[in-house]
Amino acid sequence: MTSRPSTTPGPGRRQLLLAGTTGVGVLGVGAAAVGLDRSLRDGGAPAASAAPALHGSDTVPFHGEHQAGIETPAPASATLLALDLHEDVDRDGIVRMLRLLTDDAARLTQGRGALADTEPELAAEPASLTVTVGFGPQLMERAERTPPAWLAPLPAYDIDDLEDDLSGGDLLLQIAAEDPLTVSHAARMLLKDARSFAAVRWVQRGFRRSPGTQAPGTTMRNLFGQFDGSANPELGSDHFAHVVWIDEGPFAGGTSMVVRRIRMDLDGWDRADRTAREQATGTRMSDGAPLSGGTESSLADFEQVSDNGFAVIPEFSHLRRARGVDDGEHQEIFRRPYNYDVPPPARSTAVSESGQLFISFQADLAGQFLPIQQRLAELDLLNEWTTPIGSAVFAIPPGCAEGEYLGQSVLE
Amino acid sequence: MTSRPSTTPGPGRRQLLLAGTTGVGVLGVGAAAVGLDRSLRDGGAPAASAAPALHGSDTVPFHGEHQAGIETPAPASATLLALDLHEDVDRDGIVRMLRLLTDDAARLTQGRGALADTEPELAAEPASLTVTVGFGPQLMERAERTPPAWLAPLPAYDIDDLEDDLSGGDLLLQIAAEDPLTVSHAARMLLKDARSFAAVRWVQRGFRRSPGTQAPGTTMRNLFGQFDGSANPELGSDHFAHVVWIDEGPFAGGTSMVVRRIRMDLDGWDRADRTAREQATGTRMSDGAPLSGGTESSLADFEQVSDNGFAVIPEFSHLRRARGVDDGEHQEIFRRPYNYDVPPPARSTAVSESGQLFISFQADLAGQFLPIQQRLAELDLLNEWTTPIGSAVFAIPPGCAEGEYLGQSVLE
Ligand code: HEM
Ligand code: HEM
Repeated sequence: MTSRPSTTPGPGRRQLLLAGTTGVGVLGVGAAAVGLDRSLRDGGAPAASAAPALHGSDTVPFHGEHQAGIETPAPASATLLALDLHEDVDRDGIVRMLRLLTDDAARLTQGRGALADTEPELAAEPASLTVTVGFGPQLMERAERTPPAWLAPLPAYDIDDLEDDLSGGDLLLQIAAEDPLTVSHAARMLLKDARSFAAVRWVQRGFRRSPGTQAPGTTMRNLFGQFDGSANPELGSDHFAHVVWIDEGPFAGGTSMVVRRIRMDLDGWDRADRTAREQATGTRMSDGAPLSGGTESSLADFEQVSDNGFAVIPEFSHLRRARGVDDGEHQEIFRRPYNYDVPPPARSTAVSESGQLFISFQADLAGQFLPIQQRLAELDLLNEWTTPIGSAVFAIPPGCAEGEYLGQSVLE
Repeated sequence: MTSRPSTTPGPGRRQLLLAGTTGVGVLGVGAAAVGLDRSLRDGGAPAASAAPALHGSDTVPFHGEHQAGIETPAPASATLLALDLHEDVDRDGIVRMLRLLTDDAARLTQGRGALADTEPELAAEPASLTVTVGFGPQLMERAERTPPAWLAPLPAYDIDDLEDDLSGGDLLLQIAAEDPLTVSHAARMLLKDARSFAAVRWVQRGFRRSPGTQAPGTTMRNLFGQFDGSANPELGSDHFAHVVWIDEGPFAGGTSMVVRRIRMDLDGWDRADRTAREQATGTRMSDGAPLSGGTESSLADFEQVSDNGFAVIPEFSHLRRARGVDDGEHQEIFRRPYNYDVPPPARSTAVSESGQLFISFQADLAGQFLPIQQRLAELDLLNEWTTPIGSAVFAIPPGCAEGEYLGQSVLE
């Protein structure tokens, strides 16, 4: 199968090559195209916007060693669906459901209508659609398989104010594409597959910058205006594989996924000045560089002390607490978050109800994620403005080959 | 001020030139760029996606004869905010509020932070941001000005199932851009300006295809999979001006705006086959052409009769009822709708809660919109799957010059 690479050059392209194990035809002309666009734009004089490169027909391979939707640049729109199995659904039902979901995910991501698609017209622009499936502990039990020891709700943290309706779930579908209509349609088709087996527990929609709003490969700002994502492992690198992919056991080639809905108090943040913000984060608002200096990609110098003797990157800053330097630790996770911004309750005086749909992937939940989250829950200046209101953990099975269903290696 | 045109060539570019009265620098290299993209992609062999043309810094002029956000290609993301004035806000308060809103809308749409912007970083990519302001009847009364006779809720229709929380409002802000983060930030900044004067009545967010998902200038499909928007007046044409802009009185240069939240029963639509859908709509699902034949842009032949004597475009089809041919009428309006798709209530068996955020502009509400809506409410096969659940009418004042506030010509 031939697929067009995502619109992201550089890491995106490399990573797409790595992500799929089935034949992926990818050409290296992207860079040339960038050059041409640029010269047209810059050389052309004051004010010309080239026509957008169309990405509606771009596809990300579905089959492969790993599931798609993790080691691919996060596209602009995502819907996360958590489902609860109906009471009478047993192992057979689960396998039947996963076969249906896998078949339709394979079709939709490649721009074909779902098997029983009643609006196949809406499947024609996959726009880099990916579908990622995750298991909650109860699904594994119902399927008569022992869940991994780490597959359980996160410990309760003092910072949490969790709502049951935004937490947990037996089955997770992460549906993401560069286009929101594509995501809507795919989500509906997959829900139709699943609905005889499971009911919607929660739906969360997130957004990132639309394609073309900023240069591919550059870090996006979140709703606080912070550069968010700078310190992530690089897509397609050995390091990424080490941080993210489980390397043995039934979930080998899979990973663990944490989903936290974290409310961001933008009104409160508004009252903090630039210094307070930078101290809380540990990075500069202007360019995302660590407060110790350099550029966004510079290594943070946690030893640096100001003239009056204080640490330049404050001990309680998010960066330092997340990094764990003061405990002599340094765990890593791969963060792939989305923004959310939903209408505040009617007639409320709040001007926003928004935050981050925090999503992270890591090979070892207990060894990588938990210590970071524990440190941040204990002490992190950013907590002043953030409140986790939803939380869930899922086991992501590896990818599958054609003819198999997602999770087969885990459940059979 | 120099601005880069929106990413849409053809009508988009032409219309942008017309939309603003202040100097707009626009270059004609877009077409050349398209040619280059194409040749790279097609000539280059199987599979290459050119880098996206960046549109983050594109701006649409704010000042001018007409408000922006009407005669411009509808960008990908929109937030509609309806506000109710606080009880103690009088004429002076309204003018103060409009001055604040106008100032900040002028800044934000040109890529500058709002006056008291606490996240100016998020203003740096305007991505064709437009802000359009509309008045409800009560705002005019409070400002001691007689509202136009037509500025009132629509008549109650049998098809309606209106929710108060999705209807009405004293002040309307339509905030739209190619990027959802830009829209979020602008909406928040404008709400902060307004909140000492007014409270949020409702917020509705809508989406269209993301930039680059389909070729600029082509009609989008809605959540039913229908081509939606084919019969619209062409942006920038004299005909458009005739249909949309009021030409005398205090609202000269302005227009009337109808906002209807119309739920689309996708599950029911799924049960209808292609023939039923096409008969209900009056157009072909495959390409949007009228059932009488031709292409999407062909004139419908309402006289055409099939072999067995039935009208090829059914008498009760949406197209025919909207057009009014059987009553010897033909009113026109300009439709600029968005899709919505929000999570269904928790633990519900519904797989979607979605529809169309119907938005139309017309010079003469009573003479153009009402007869169409009346006919559709009486008889329209599409009603089987659609239910208006929110409704509002606003008077859109003309644009303003630098130094003026939006609505000044109406209120002073
Ligand atoms: C709304 C909530 C959050 C916001 C706004 C936020 C924001 C940020 C920002 C601005 C950075 C610095 C730039 C970067 O490297 O991305 C950062 C880094 C980081 N954050 Fe968060 N974060 C949030 C929640 C979390 C959570 C829940 C975790 C994990 C439990 C986490 C883990 C990390 C890690 C590991 C880093 C990289 C630290 C390093 O440099 O090694 N963050 N975050
Ligand atoms: C969810 C609700 C609606 C859907 C899905 C819908 C869909 C469509 C479709 C598919 C077309 C044909 C293609 C086109 O020209 O755009 C159309 C045409 C049209 N619709 Fe609707 N529509 C809806 C509501 C309305 C409402 C509320 C009005 C006005 C009261 C309206 C007025 C029109 C008009 C004037 C036309 C053009 C007819 C002509 O060819 O002259 N529509 N609509």
